[in-house]
Amino acid sequence: MSGKFILIEGGDGAGKDTHIARLKELLKDRPTVFTREPGGTRIGKVLREMLLHESEGPVSLPAELFLFMADRAQHVEEVIKPALAAGKIVVSNRSWISFLAYQIQGREQYDWGSLMRMGIEKVYADAPVDLALVLDVPVEVGRERQKAMGKSYDTMESMSTETRERIRQAFLNLARTLPQAVVIDANRPVEQVWEDVKYQVLRVI
Amino acid sequence: MSGKFILIEGGDGAGKDTHIARLKELLKDRPTVFTREPGGTRIGKVLREMLLHESEGPVSLPAELFLFMADRAQHVEEVIKPALAAGKIVVSNRSWISFLAYQIQGREQYDWGSLMRMGIEKVYADAPVDLALVLDVPVEVGRERQKAMGKSYDTMESMSTETRERIRQAFLNLARTLPQAVVIDANRPVEQVWEDVKYQVLRVI
Repeated sequence: MSGKFILIEGGDGAGKDTHIARLKELLKDRPTVFTREPGGTRIGKVLREMLLHESEGPVSLPAELFLFMADRAQHVEEVIKPALAAGKIVVSNRSWISFLAYQIQGREQYDWGSLMRMGIEKVYADAPVDLALVLDVPVEVGRERQKAMGKSYDTMESMSTETRERIRQAFLNLARTLPQAVVIDANRPVEQVWEDVKYQVLRVI
Repeated sequence: MSGKFILIEGGDGAGKDTHIARLKELLKDRPTVFTREPGGTRIGKVLREMLLHESEGPVSLPAELFLFMADRAQHVEEVIKPALAAGKIVVSNRSWISFLAYQIQGREQYDWGSLMRMGIEKVYADAPVDLALVLDVPVEVGRERQKAMGKSYDTMESMSTETRERIRQAFLNLARTLPQAVVIDANRPVEQVWEDVKYQVLRVI
């Protein structure tokens, strides 16, 4: 028996947390593991610590990319693979699609892209994605929603509109290359978006 | 003006520390940076911490490989590249040759080899090696020397002779693929070995 691996992806303010909360309710009687990347492992905690408090000096870009990969690799071995092997549904709040969108495309680190993509293929080789929901909203809508919720992430806040737009396009492009990806227009009332999210999730589990 | 990048590589008990101490004396009037991998950066310290104290659960193999890469990447950006750019000589006690010998070949993780090698090529792209000295001793000699010095590394001690032999052969094979590598027979009196080390270093600086 093998489980189902579902990614909830999308830019800031797209509604990931809202729909994951609803999925928790929807799937409460099914064996489901809700997790997140980065930060789901102790490596992720160290990673966050390092990136948020760079008082000891900045973490270089390549080092940061490898730290993210280490966190993901640990997360796959420690959390995702055992859960899938036990036949559980795994719902991940962000995963490698966000990584490629934010860290590679968003920051125009294209020369690291192919190596990171190969790394991702290897890391997730035994954790194939059954469904990747990409919640899509225009950049300005996402920003306004974040403000309304009082969210302010240091790094996110400082992003230019141009960078955010690049990240949005990266999500859409990555979705096109993954047959299991479904882009959902999240610039609609939450109930309408939820109908689509629910439909897609129930379709694969 | 660009500096010189020198790696001192080899298995345990080959004499790296001894000859690095002599190089410090030899090069004391030259602008030289002595460093080591892994562990030369704060990422390396976290890495060591994690690998030595796995009380919170084991670090998975792929995560460990990426953590080593993160440490190396940070080390190159933070220590090696600035020193080379300033025209200094950089002498590293171990580097990526040891990484490939121990972590990939020694543990027979060949399916991670090509990705790690590509990563290394990218990480060290702007820090080309001018000289890699591979100090070679038979496995039993290295082990006896370590014992005599009272050194006992948890992980090293537990290595089988077969693993140590595989690591030794990995060093020799890697040296053959790198034109800047010189294998030095370290199973001789220290003065004879030092003559070779000194000659090679003076040749490139």
